[in-house]
Amino acid sequence: MLSKNRAQFIRSLHQKKFRQEHGLFLVEGAKSVREVLASDFRVDTLLATEAFYKENALPADRQPPSVEIVSPEELTRVGTLESNNMALALVRTRENRPLLAEPGEIVLLLDDVRDPGNLGTILRIADWYGVRKVVCSDTTAEVYNPKVISASKGSFTRVHWYYTDLVAYAQALPAGTPVYGAFLDGQNVHNLPFGTEGGYLMMGNEANGIRPELVPMVSRSVTIPRYGDAESLNVGIATAVILDNWRRGAM
Amino acid sequence: MLSKNRAQFIRSLHQKKFRQEHGLFLVEGAKSVREVLASDFRVDTLLATEAFYKENALPADRQPPSVEIVSPEELTRVGTLESNNMALALVRTRENRPLLAEPGEIVLLLDDVRDPGNLGTILRIADWYGVRKVVCSDTTAEVYNPKVISASKGSFTRVHWYYTDLVAYAQALPAGTPVYGAFLDGQNVHNLPFGTEGGYLMMGNEANGIRPELVPMVSRSVTIPRYGDAESLNVGIATAVILDNWRRGAM
Repeated sequence: MLSKNRAQFIRSLHQKKFRQEHGLFLVEGAKSVREVLASDFRVDTLLATEAFYKENALPADRQPPSVEIVSPEELTRVGTLESNNMALALVRTRENRPLLAEPGEIVLLLDDVRDPGNLGTILRIADWYGVRKVVCSDTTAEVYNPKVISASKGSFTRVHWYYTDLVAYAQALPAGTPVYGAFLDGQNVHNLPFGTEGGYLMMGNEANGIRPELVPMVSRSVTIPRYGDAESLNVGIATAVILDNWRRGAM
Repeated sequence: MLSKNRAQFIRSLHQKKFRQEHGLFLVEGAKSVREVLASDFRVDTLLATEAFYKENALPADRQPPSVEIVSPEELTRVGTLESNNMALALVRTRENRPLLAEPGEIVLLLDDVRDPGNLGTILRIADWYGVRKVVCSDTTAEVYNPKVISASKGSFTRVHWYYTDLVAYAQALPAGTPVYGAFLDGQNVHNLPFGTEGGYLMMGNEANGIRPELVPMVSRSVTIPRYGDAESLNVGIATAVILDNWRRGAM
């Protein structure tokens, strides 16, 4: 049985302000909690229903400092999901450390991607296409938002992120670094020789695309050819299609 | 000023039961309403704020039978969007007519795609890739659900759909018709010679994929190669990536 104080504390983590203050975020649902328990994230607290706890026996060295068995109703009451009859974890946020592309590696640059669902989807796509690093402008959705974590379907445990002033970051990249940027009037992604040297792929805001200040740092502007009449593709969809072409072209 | 009865009637259309009973569905927000007014859908009623009405002067032959000027608050109260300060239309649903692929045409087959957001996204992707026909299993999300309409970003005006028993439909296709199906263990989509003959692309349920009963009607099973560790891709993302490869391969 969760105390009123405890429940209130957990619910406070629905808000960015308190996530930052406490350095904790929520991971919800069976699959995500299972993945975070198996990852190198530090889980402080596990709230689990008896069903989840029995099915997911944890080795002694993986036991979180605090484990509580709760009812599905309690879980749903403190979490953000419509229903959760499995588990919820309070997990330590990570230090914000700089990330750079190693030779041959693909790194995503997100400029002002605002929608948490889109960011979560992009983490999942990155994870599918073997992209391990995502650099986000300071204005991009906060990765610890429960909607991001949930939309990433566990991929947040395998992808690293770095929030920074993206203009300064891009300016500091060595001359000659391949930086592809997604625009509506770039080169046809089907004809680009991506090669195997790796580099960066920059994706922009849902409504406005990549900011003009960043354009000079893009070495090649790419476009997904359109065969019909939709005005645009969602940023998550576009990320997947470009990464697919990149991986395909690099074989 | 909307009467209480009128407001109640509009709100009843949030539910499938009443959409079916009245043969009407909701289109909300400036962009979608503008597109539906310019399409061949029959708009019965337009509720618009003064701002929207002034900016979108309608030629006499495009005036809906009923037009009301309302406040943004009234709009938001009767609609499903978090806020809507532009317009809402009540639109006649279409007859459910059979669709088939013409030579060279690509048609989507959706088996039990349950999430309205996914269906809306798929309509938008279809529209981008020049796919004009989508055939849905009877268990696929209802296309007139406001979440589908909204996620399609206006593409519902350019893509046709047909709801049917998908097993019977697929069984009735002429022998030799190319039917590609998305599976986790099919042929690498990067290496498939799609050619220009067109055909069908079948996408399955979010959790379970394509039903076993449909497998015999799939002539070629396709897979998006994975380079990392995510368990799967969202069905909308996978649809976009496969269509992109199909269009690229058909050039």
